[in-house]
Amino acid sequence: MVRNTALALLSLVVGFVPPAALAQDDLLTRARQQFQPIPTTPPELPGNPATPAKVELGKMLYFDPRLSASHAISCSSCHNIGLGGADAEPTSIGHRWQHGGRNAPTVFNAVFNKAQFWDGRAKDLEQQAGGPMVNPVEMASPETHVAEQLKGIPGYGVAFAQAFPGEPDPITLANAQKAIALFEATLITPNATFDRFLRGEENALSPAQKAGLAAFIDKGCSSCHNGINVGGGMYAPFGVVEKPGAEFLPAADKGRFMVTKTASDEYVFKVPTLRNIALTAPYFHTGQAWDLRQAVAVMGASQLGIQLTGDDVAKITAFLDSLTGEQPKTTYPILPPSVASTPRPQP
Amino acid sequence: MVRNTALALLSLVVGFVPPAALAQDDLLTRARQQFQPIPTTPPELPGNPATPAKVELGKMLYFDPRLSASHAISCSSCHNIGLGGADAEPTSIGHRWQHGGRNAPTVFNAVFNKAQFWDGRAKDLEQQAGGPMVNPVEMASPETHVAEQLKGIPGYGVAFAQAFPGEPDPITLANAQKAIALFEATLITPNATFDRFLRGEENALSPAQKAGLAAFIDKGCSSCHNGINVGGGMYAPFGVVEKPGAEFLPAADKGRFMVTKTASDEYVFKVPTLRNIALTAPYFHTGQAWDLRQAVAVMGASQLGIQLTGDDVAKITAFLDSLTGEQPKTTYPILPPSVASTPRPQP
Repeated sequence: MVRNTALALLSLVVGFVPPAALAQDDLLTRARQQFQPIPTTPPELPGNPATPAKVELGKMLYFDPRLSASHAISCSSCHNIGLGGADAEPTSIGHRWQHGGRNAPTVFNAVFNKAQFWDGRAKDLEQQAGGPMVNPVEMASPETHVAEQLKGIPGYGVAFAQAFPGEPDPITLANAQKAIALFEATLITPNATFDRFLRGEENALSPAQKAGLAAFIDKGCSSCHNGINVGGGMYAPFGVVEKPGAEFLPAADKGRFMVTKTASDEYVFKVPTLRNIALTAPYFHTGQAWDLRQAVAVMGASQLGIQLTGDDVAKITAFLDSLTGEQPKTTYPILPPSVASTPRPQP
Repeated sequence: MVRNTALALLSLVVGFVPPAALAQDDLLTRARQQFQPIPTTPPELPGNPATPAKVELGKMLYFDPRLSASHAISCSSCHNIGLGGADAEPTSIGHRWQHGGRNAPTVFNAVFNKAQFWDGRAKDLEQQAGGPMVNPVEMASPETHVAEQLKGIPGYGVAFAQAFPGEPDPITLANAQKAIALFEATLITPNATFDRFLRGEENALSPAQKAGLAAFIDKGCSSCHNGINVGGGMYAPFGVVEKPGAEFLPAADKGRFMVTKTASDEYVFKVPTLRNIALTAPYFHTGQAWDLRQAVAVMGASQLGIQLTGDDVAKITAFLDSLTGEQPKTTYPILPPSVASTPRPQP
């Protein structure tokens, strides 16, 4: 880099380098080793090429409450595009006012996660999309019913035929999942302050945010929270150094163990993304931490075994604020109407 | 009109007028005596002048589930912009899965109704907007809580100050209602096929739709369903000639009587708009008629005392299809985030 070279020459000539300048370049270099900016265009999904018709269908399905047994709950109910891609609940309210088992993760940038759900039980968005629709405590549609419901709405016949041309029977749960996944892949939040910093705009971050970023790296937060999503790329035990209180880590939910049945996966969870974290309280898989500062402090103690000072917490939280990106601009879809023969909501 | 004059001259000269041409002009004239098209721009609300900041705030509030006690239900839950401004339920699902007492009316074009709710208990949209928020079976927020909740979300401080400049304490339930009403007044659906006909595009309606319109007028439907909203302008007893079955008119719900306590208002309801009726099944205040044709037949029997033939019903339903207008294009609002001190959802 020209600037680094100039500084190096300067140090040779006068034997002096301004320490703040070096430290800042150094911080950017170190940050780039650990993090990447959110791309400004949606990524491709392997085996599921995007077309405008498929993405538009996915948006319709994402917002359509008729995919639930009650016709009252849609993907959007718990992954609200106006609320950082999540809801504002500890755990979401589902069919017949049942509560989900874990806090609804944000859909924003979920496409960049290594796997989906807190326990990683879905390998990608497409697989994930099938889960809540048929989960009895969420949308509660019997599995075979989703396609029946959609076939009962004539407008979807047209929309699926356009999205999956040439298929003799395009209205299937699998195709619905493909379309939803493609729409969700558009829900990315580029150009966060932190991303502008990563792209070289060194003063995008405030001094407090830079100090927070340095602390985030130096204290070890970025050992797990790294990559494009500042998280989302690996699994980790919650309470690796010290178990947090039972409100945050209740004994009954053993996390990834329930998927793998491997003892070492007890209380292991996917490290969540910290992208847009300032928008998505409450925190943790239990949704029991309402204050981001509290969540940071708990992480320090339970994952790193350190007691973060109030100043550390403030700096790190200031850095986390820099992870809020441009929120998606979505035009509310007009859904095809039900007709007399459309399957009706179940009580 | 030039054409009429030409036809009149022709009849003087040759003693003959093509009957279809005359009948068509006649139908347009008769239709214009009873109906007006939806305007293409939102109407003004008396005492509540629109500004972009107020309308945008109203949209945010309309979509914000934190106005409900549970933080899970918004205006949009039951008045879904993708579903003709209503939901697809007989009666909506509210707080703790309670059901509302009557079918959710469409918000679209509601600004043109004489009064709001099935029983007209709110005189306008502004008054209406306060109802569901505090209704224990709907959004269930205690009345004083709405402003407290909004004051606990810092971004709303900014948004209310911009919407109500100069007010020392702008975050009030009353101001929230004003803003919501202004957003709702934008939810109009102009340029329906029928409106193009009313504006003089005589062949906008198909022959079947014209026959349906003629039947709609001749059989007496338009005695109640008239004006801009093809309804919404008056009250009428349900079952004025013959009481419909108890599934459509259960004895316990006496309609407007519950507002006025006047015996003659027993089983009286606001005549609903038929605008976009093809999008908003199920029908009637009970939401128990899923088939528009059935609803038309029941209306003929109960309100007009006539047994409509299958052909009459088909024609009238074809006409009703012409009442579907351009659906609103709404960009999903980004809501101000909750912070650590924001009041939390109530279980």
